[in-house]
Amino acid sequence: MNRRDFTLAKLKGLGNTIIDDVEKNTVPAVKVPSRGTSNIVYDQDKRYYVLGDRYGQRSLGNVKQIKKVAQMVSMANFCKGLVETQKTATIREMYYVSEGWDVDFGSQDESNLIGEDLEVTLGIAREDLGLMPEEDGASVYGNITIKDDDVEINAAKSGKSGYSISPTIDDVEFVDHDVQRVIAVETMGMFHRMVQEKAYKKFDTLIVGLKGQAARATRRFLKRVNEELHLPVYICNDGDPWGFHIAMVIISGSAKLAHVNHDLATPDAKFMGVTASDIINYDLPTDPLKDIDVLRLKELAKDPRYKNEFWQNEIKKMLKIGKKAEQQSFSKYGLEYVVDTYFPEKLDSM
Amino acid sequence: MNRRDFTLAKLKGLGNTIIDDVEKNTVPAVKVPSRGTSNIVYDQDKRYYVLGDRYGQRSLGNVKQIKKVAQMVSMANFCKGLVETQKTATIREMYYVSEGWDVDFGSQDESNLIGEDLEVTLGIAREDLGLMPEEDGASVYGNITIKDDDVEINAAKSGKSGYSISPTIDDVEFVDHDVQRVIAVETMGMFHRMVQEKAYKKFDTLIVGLKGQAARATRRFLKRVNEELHLPVYICNDGDPWGFHIAMVIISGSAKLAHVNHDLATPDAKFMGVTASDIINYDLPTDPLKDIDVLRLKELAKDPRYKNEFWQNEIKKMLKIGKKAEQQSFSKYGLEYVVDTYFPEKLDSM
Repeated sequence: MNRRDFTLAKLKGLGNTIIDDVEKNTVPAVKVPSRGTSNIVYDQDKRYYVLGDRYGQRSLGNVKQIKKVAQMVSMANFCKGLVETQKTATIREMYYVSEGWDVDFGSQDESNLIGEDLEVTLGIAREDLGLMPEEDGASVYGNITIKDDDVEINAAKSGKSGYSISPTIDDVEFVDHDVQRVIAVETMGMFHRMVQEKAYKKFDTLIVGLKGQAARATRRFLKRVNEELHLPVYICNDGDPWGFHIAMVIISGSAKLAHVNHDLATPDAKFMGVTASDIINYDLPTDPLKDIDVLRLKELAKDPRYKNEFWQNEIKKMLKIGKKAEQQSFSKYGLEYVVDTYFPEKLDSM
Repeated sequence: MNRRDFTLAKLKGLGNTIIDDVEKNTVPAVKVPSRGTSNIVYDQDKRYYVLGDRYGQRSLGNVKQIKKVAQMVSMANFCKGLVETQKTATIREMYYVSEGWDVDFGSQDESNLIGEDLEVTLGIAREDLGLMPEEDGASVYGNITIKDDDVEINAAKSGKSGYSISPTIDDVEFVDHDVQRVIAVETMGMFHRMVQEKAYKKFDTLIVGLKGQAARATRRFLKRVNEELHLPVYICNDGDPWGFHIAMVIISGSAKLAHVNHDLATPDAKFMGVTASDIINYDLPTDPLKDIDVLRLKELAKDPRYKNEFWQNEIKKMLKIGKKAEQQSFSKYGLEYVVDTYFPEKLDSM
């Protein structure tokens, strides 16, 4: 069953439970898994956060819940239309669309929450329901050919900024590729450096420009190339707690999205960014850690996703030297250094 | 003379004035046009901000200025290398590169300022010097074929998110196109709506997704398609002071960049976004104006770029109704409405 049929089946299932309740003369209710902190669990085997088995009831028998159930069903109905016509709407449009309903949302926060309720209840990502975020995903450069509708696109022939991952990345088919790996970098500055220094050729790699915190579409793309094309994924971020965590969210997902991490996390992706050891070994230009960096590093040290020896050591070392460094700081040694010297040494060490 | 040769000639000119001074036994000095507020003038004929004719001297005879002159010459020399090898560096990399000089910068603010000094002194944009911002430009969808190095790219065959304008957009050649106009929208949400509703076909248009405030590369692209391909450019933003001003900076440039507006402003571009009149006529879902919106609208009313009747009326009307509206709010009438009804009516009225 493809993703679309699977989604439609899930939506029909939701409708049927309500119809069944009505036909059985019981008050219709929907089971919504709990997204409360106490129900978010780090799964050691899966290596990402998942939801536990606690759930709540949304019942038409409860006056306070009637509107929420109605909104949920209205949204599900709207999404069914999207999926059937192969359209999408942004979560902002979704909010405005509700103005035409009798149970419209008071704010976008409210409609986003119902969207998450649907995700968690159906166990599928909102993108599968046709609900998209505002922002596009990362840029990809290198020799991969994908098919989007009837158009074939080669990401080495899409211009200097490469192919943009669109929110509908799951509709895209991987046709062909000639690479050994994927290297994702945090900034578009580093992306353009790698394109200019022909890193795609030197390392037989796709280059992915994350643009900071990776969009959900980017995470889907990385997961798909990793699992469908069996390409190792390396994430090369700045050497600071924020760079670490951008990588970690790609690898092990976020707690907030525990209910969709099975679609978003890429547990086999590897951090290949700037470490405290690199700062010392390469004598990099640094900035002193700010209070907020120190606080964040201490939080990460306690986070189950960072419990292995590598992370514990690097976090300790960074706190000890009290310094952080950006990947672009390698240009102290010339623009080419990062591609000609640093990356080969890092790849060797992996 | 192409842009590269022009840039190299400018750089050599700077070097020669210093050598001439030395050979004439006078103290070398560089004339740097003033970027102070009093030297920024709105040019009624050009319809954008320009610099007046005041300038300062940076002299090696002044102890306080020696370092700045040395930094400026070092940066010019580095840029000469970039232009000659057809490479680029981000302004962040530029800052780190200086770590290898005897006159390194204390912070990136400092190196950015010297970069602006070079722009203003040479009268060319820093992109021509190979110095790039971190961020990419807008997304373009529709039937235009461009050539970047030896790769031809059609922006209707680059995937759902279209062709990404790269910071090096001036190296790109326009090969062919089959459109009558360009419609730029503020958000990627609206961009995807227009792609899905086939607005490129309905209006024979390129669709440009600005992603908020337009990057310099986006402004170059819009200026180039307007002036080289003679395509009218329409900017369709949200109905609030921020949407207005994103459009106005594309049209008439910013005061801060008065020294490069001749390369960035597109005075013939037209605002076709949501107006206060639209809010009333289409009975759009709105948000109340916040204090900061009111303040900003009052500032705009006094700005020379907004002095025509259209803007004065619309600003007054928005202040009167005390409401603002986003373009996506048209989805109250269904997702297709904005493309099927609103845009045709707006285009007709232009």
